[in-house]
Amino acid sequence: MTAYPKMSAEERKAEYARVSREYEELKARGLNLNMARGKPGKAQLDLVSDIFQLMQRPEDYVSDGIDVRNYGELPGLPAARRLFAEILGCRPEQVFVGGNASLQLMYDTISKAYTHGLLHSPRPWCREPAVKFLCPAPGYDRHFKITESFGFELVTIPMTDAGPDMDAVEAAVRDPAVKGIWCVPKYSNPDGIIYSDETIRRMAALKPAAPDFTIMWDNAYCIHEFEGDYVEFPDILSACEQAGSPDMVFEFASTSKVTLPGGGISCFACSQANLAYMEKLMSIQIMSFDKVNQQRHVLYLQDKAHTLALMKKHAVIMGPKFRCVVESLDREIAPLEIASWRWPKGGYFISLYAMPGTAKRTLELCKAAGVTMTDAGATFPYGKDPQDSNIRIAPSLPPVEELEQAIAVLCTCLKLSALEELGV
Amino acid sequence: MTAYPKMSAEERKAEYARVSREYEELKARGLNLNMARGKPGKAQLDLVSDIFQLMQRPEDYVSDGIDVRNYGELPGLPAARRLFAEILGCRPEQVFVGGNASLQLMYDTISKAYTHGLLHSPRPWCREPAVKFLCPAPGYDRHFKITESFGFELVTIPMTDAGPDMDAVEAAVRDPAVKGIWCVPKYSNPDGIIYSDETIRRMAALKPAAPDFTIMWDNAYCIHEFEGDYVEFPDILSACEQAGSPDMVFEFASTSKVTLPGGGISCFACSQANLAYMEKLMSIQIMSFDKVNQQRHVLYLQDKAHTLALMKKHAVIMGPKFRCVVESLDREIAPLEIASWRWPKGGYFISLYAMPGTAKRTLELCKAAGVTMTDAGATFPYGKDPQDSNIRIAPSLPPVEELEQAIAVLCTCLKLSALEELGV
Repeated sequence: MTAYPKMSAEERKAEYARVSREYEELKARGLNLNMARGKPGKAQLDLVSDIFQLMQRPEDYVSDGIDVRNYGELPGLPAARRLFAEILGCRPEQVFVGGNASLQLMYDTISKAYTHGLLHSPRPWCREPAVKFLCPAPGYDRHFKITESFGFELVTIPMTDAGPDMDAVEAAVRDPAVKGIWCVPKYSNPDGIIYSDETIRRMAALKPAAPDFTIMWDNAYCIHEFEGDYVEFPDILSACEQAGSPDMVFEFASTSKVTLPGGGISCFACSQANLAYMEKLMSIQIMSFDKVNQQRHVLYLQDKAHTLALMKKHAVIMGPKFRCVVESLDREIAPLEIASWRWPKGGYFISLYAMPGTAKRTLELCKAAGVTMTDAGATFPYGKDPQDSNIRIAPSLPPVEELEQAIAVLCTCLKLSALEELGV
Repeated sequence: MTAYPKMSAEERKAEYARVSREYEELKARGLNLNMARGKPGKAQLDLVSDIFQLMQRPEDYVSDGIDVRNYGELPGLPAARRLFAEILGCRPEQVFVGGNASLQLMYDTISKAYTHGLLHSPRPWCREPAVKFLCPAPGYDRHFKITESFGFELVTIPMTDAGPDMDAVEAAVRDPAVKGIWCVPKYSNPDGIIYSDETIRRMAALKPAAPDFTIMWDNAYCIHEFEGDYVEFPDILSACEQAGSPDMVFEFASTSKVTLPGGGISCFACSQANLAYMEKLMSIQIMSFDKVNQQRHVLYLQDKAHTLALMKKHAVIMGPKFRCVVESLDREIAPLEIASWRWPKGGYFISLYAMPGTAKRTLELCKAAGVTMTDAGATFPYGKDPQDSNIRIAPSLPPVEELEQAIAVLCTCLKLSALEELGV
């Protein structure tokens, strides 16, 4: 197959006619497939549903002498703090264990910065004339939306193969209005990039003008390899400590994609000074998050090694889905030179760069053929991809059979929109 | 026994010597008892721990076609919304089901008013020159602390036998800076008062100057009778609707004292317009609260009738504790005319009014004898009881044997501090 950009007008016309017929056939199938969000599939839920068999014996209700069923223990069960600390490579006394959603903990961190200020804030962020937040893009739409919803100005930072462009970050933090940055450091959403050691070193060494500049380190995929072995990853808390800025980072993680998306547990980790400050604010808000579910998770996951063994079982389900997508793209799209992508080893997404100017059109065509994907532009601040190129593929939810159909639709739509863009 | 105020100086001196000896004897026992918070006791936790036996069959994971284990359904499981709606007497589509803490939902409501404004807010409350909040007192310290933490001015409203002094409330809401009021309408914390129909009617009929004035209706003890039958209670949402102000109220409830304090579910209920507005804000914050636990509760509590039957079992545990306290007070303190109290039929507290000027001293003496109670003043805004009189007794945690000892200490300390105040 000749690459589209190299085709003659004649050839493109013929190809367009052929692909259009293909599209109409797919459309006629009346598909209804969803690759919009990083939602685990039913097989993954079933894999872990033996978690419900725990908490049957009275001794299970007690952890380190604490009756997990009653009020109290604001920062979470000590055993749950130890579990997350081992997984993240930090210390238990740096961990606060939350409810079923790390997103809620992230939102609350930003919200408290806005209403009360953080540890080193001269004033609450709502009293600042302007707040800017760095958004490495493409990135996670829900991160960007949190900071957008508080009226912050979102500053796009380009992503490189090694993580956020640190030259751009270092330049940006000279502005005292810049109060923080969103990061998904391991298997970044959506690019699947692992931040390099150099990126992490430079991130921890930042000397921002704002005394309360905060790295929002969403380690959502800290143990989420679906291909190959677990990849060790540096502890950002120690890195910041060593660089002399122990209070500059809040790290987040959850078991949403380890146990159950709707019923897992989450945490944030930070310096003990930050934790003491946040606990004081949170003591007004809640007595503690659900310690019963924390205990259920402690009993179920046990420790890091046991948790990594469980992740291998998830990988058995997830691996084939990612292979299905990437192999289809390699086969169908690579020769046409109209898009590029990576082959990630973990995380929940494949980031595809369609021919500039065609992402929106591609997803419109997909939708008309019954395949829902994350909106084009969603991975950029304000939902606007300046190149109209990035498409986030979330292959986790559909079974492989459905995924094959969905990706066939996507490939066809990529071809159509590229041909339209090139002129037919 | 002669009432203390009627005793001669001589008699008081003799009584003081006698009570002082009694106190020293109690102190020598080295007690360590806690009546500080409305924490259920172990017998109540054990009563409901069969809840952990649920969620064993795959069909339990699905509710109204929704896999409760996965992401989604921001306002909560429809079945959980129906359950709370039946208990509260409102409509399921008015209910948002949250996590393990209604306090968190209350905090978030105030926080969102502050950061984004409520449905009818001209601007976020952080942009108002001043915000005032009405605090019927004695009341719940955690309510007052939420609004205090956002820097609002707390305005004390006296409590009457029928609920908050509505003349005072009606006068206060003429001030456009007054943005809301805290209410515990059934078995108020700590007085155990049930708001009268007239109070509720006047509350719903309020025409505040602030367009976004909000009644924070914490129906914490909506089904929490420990003496006698369930008492029906009007639905505040309909009352406000009928009065032409459907958006003026947020109601809160939870199963913290129905199932497990640390692992229950909570809700807020409000007009559908309010709910749509809040959902839009909350969609930024969380995908949904823990639907697995919501489903566990739906399976466990089933419906209102079944839930009320469970509350009767809690009453069997709670009733004797309250009787123990009130009978001791009736026997030991009533003849002395140095304090007053009610005999509540539900809720978690007994509100005791010691001789003005003696509450702090009484609790100091208690503490020195190993009995921890809620701090004096805690039931008033800023923790300051102008009369230094109100003492909140929380008898739920200790077993009856321990309670008897604790209340003996309290009685002795009440006597000592009254004698000191009267002069010895």
